[in-house]
Amino acid sequence: MSILIISGTNRTNNKSLKIANLYAQKLISKNIDAEILSLTDLPKDYIYSALYENSGKNPEFNQIREKIASFKKIIFVVAEYNGSFPGVLKAFIDGLKYPDSLKNKKFALVGLSSGIQGGALALSHLTDVISYLNGNVLGNRMKIYKIEENFKDGKITNSVFEDLINAQIEEFIAF
Amino acid sequence: MSILIISGTNRTNNKSLKIANLYAQKLISKNIDAEILSLTDLPKDYIYSALYENSGKNPEFNQIREKIASFKKIIFVVAEYNGSFPGVLKAFIDGLKYPDSLKNKKFALVGLSSGIQGGALALSHLTDVISYLNGNVLGNRMKIYKIEENFKDGKITNSVFEDLINAQIEEFIAF
Amino acid sequence: MSILIISGTNRTNNKSLKIANLYAQKLISKNIDAEILSLTDLPKDYIYSALYENSGKNPEFNQIREKIASFKKIIFVVAEYNGSFPGVLKAFIDGLKYPDSLKNKKFALVGLSSGIQGGALALSHLTDVISYLNGNVLGNRMKIYKIEENFKDGKITNSVFEDLINAQIEEFIAF
Amino acid sequence: MSILIISGTNRTNNKSLKIANLYAQKLISKNIDAEILSLTDLPKDYIYSALYENSGKNPEFNQIREKIASFKKIIFVVAEYNGSFPGVLKAFIDGLKYPDSLKNKKFALVGLSSGIQGGALALSHLTDVISYLNGNVLGNRMKIYKIEENFKDGKITNSVFEDLINAQIEEFIAF
Repeated sequence: MSILIISGTNRTNNKSLKIANLYAQKLISKNIDAEILSLTDLPKDYIYSALYENSGKNPEFNQIREKIASFKKIIFVVAEYNGSFPGVLKAFIDGLKYPDSLKNKKFALVGLSSGIQGGALALSHLTDVISYLNGNVLGNRMKIYKIEENFKDGKITNSVFEDLINAQIEEFIAF
Repeated sequence: MSILIISGTNRTNNKSLKIANLYAQKLISKNIDAEILSLTDLPKDYIYSALYENSGKNPEFNQIREKIASFKKIIFVVAEYNGSFPGVLKAFIDGLKYPDSLKNKKFALVGLSSGIQGGALALSHLTDVISYLNGNVLGNRMKIYKIEENFKDGKITNSVFEDLINAQIEEFIAF
Repeated sequence: MSILIISGTNRTNNKSLKIANLYAQKLISKNIDAEILSLTDLPKDYIYSALYENSGKNPEFNQIREKIASFKKIIFVVAEYNGSFPGVLKAFIDGLKYPDSLKNKKFALVGLSSGIQGGALALSHLTDVISYLNGNVLGNRMKIYKIEENFKDGKITNSVFEDLINAQIEEFIAF
Repeated sequence: MSILIISGTNRTNNKSLKIANLYAQKLISKNIDAEILSLTDLPKDYIYSALYENSGKNPEFNQIREKIASFKKIIFVVAEYNGSFPGVLKAFIDGLKYPDSLKNKKFALVGLSSGIQGGALALSHLTDVISYLNGNVLGNRMKIYKIEENFKDGKITNSVFEDLINAQIEEFIAF
């Protein structure tokens, strides 16, 4: 089994990528082939060069599309911005090959926030988007809130979260 | 494989039950054991006798709980009321054994409406509820809009809908 | 100005009613006429006797409908049940006179939860319902999480919440 | 009174801008000062040059921020992409001055789609975002579905939609 983990923001030095690394390590320790795709790799002019009439015409982004195509299970790590997912993450999905890029694939969602929501609304909105594209989302959506308190030096410091993450990973492998 | 179909309203003579019957027939024709649970069977005083401190104490509803427990795949047929699912459907879920009644089970959602939404928001809200309870919802959420035009005498009269329903059923069987 | 506060559950001894009382006291101290409607007053057989073909035919509930009709500003206090609002609250709305009971009125939403969400998804879903009925919801949706820690003996014990509640009330009066 | 209308996509030759023009004409005919902001004016490298550590540092986008600051009523025209709003629209909001750019302002939402949803989920998600930022959204969310059939040569060709749009505008002026 191989799983792609998408770190869902292009912010420099973001925490999503660190959480993506944590999930990758956990998967690899179970002998699962885990790979990370970071939205920091989006082309600078992505919102013009890879969308709409230019969909499929940006060679750099086409490589990312091919990577998506090669995985059947995908984890999205989603920081909460303004009560939802990052706009850049939605723009990323808007640039995928339409309409079958996510169809019949399986997804797990991980939200993170500085505040106490853990991205609850972000994950609800993202589920709607993935569902629209006929992708299947694992019911167990992980919400890591107060990320600055609960995640330090690449490690979860809250044992409840550690257990919940491990349970989500087990369920996603079985999904 | 056996699948439970829940007709999600207690309205007399409702269309949800007719759509539930349609799904049951389609499943049975594929040699799948399909059973229907109609919310018209809820006790009259359900919202007092089977919720909160009385949770688990209504013998009539306990039989319904046991039925839920015996299925791993469940289809919800959901009429759109006031921009969401029927309150009675949510009250039904509020009366299930907490917290594991829906956990790790698989769900398909079918919305229906007189208007043009087909219960889009209803199905989004219901996905949030099922997800909260760790149930897994098939991404392909069927929306049957303008039900009076598109469903007559127990049959779908719109071939696009017929194809979409058949596709959803195939995906749910494989889910 | 007069404001109706709806305590959105019929659970015995619920916290929603206590929070409704808190809001009422705060409004009255500002010389605003505040009244409380508790869903514990719903008829026992409400989901049969006051919905669908019986809509408008339950004299007891008709009094509640008349109360709703007499207010232009309404606060909903909403406990989180199963990742959304209580089913009984939605059933209550399903029994109101359709389609104009909430039209052009103004609403403030207050969520409460034992866990850390404060009803974030519940308030989102309820906003969709009120919006469908052409009611206007104040953007500032109050989320009181970990209610057992933060609310004791009828008083908010967390000064941050106290300030947020006071701010919401000021905004709602001006709305 | 002055109202800003935001055409919520940067797609070349998009319909959102045409609908924005329609709303502008209707407002101007009522002697309301209406101005349009089109997301086609976003800088090419917007998702890097105007977000996160560069928030507030892109002079071109700062002019857009100042325009937002000068209006108290804003209409968003939102095409449905992939079951939600365009990613670019959310990225636009992510680049606004945080946290008060939308606070206490009033918003009307207009969805449009080729299919039959009219952006129902998009408008629900966008309401959550605006609500998070303490903006107030008019309950009456306009959904223009099957836009190719119902809007031609800059004019609504469906009299039901024409009436609904006029009603929404009246309600927004009074909001």
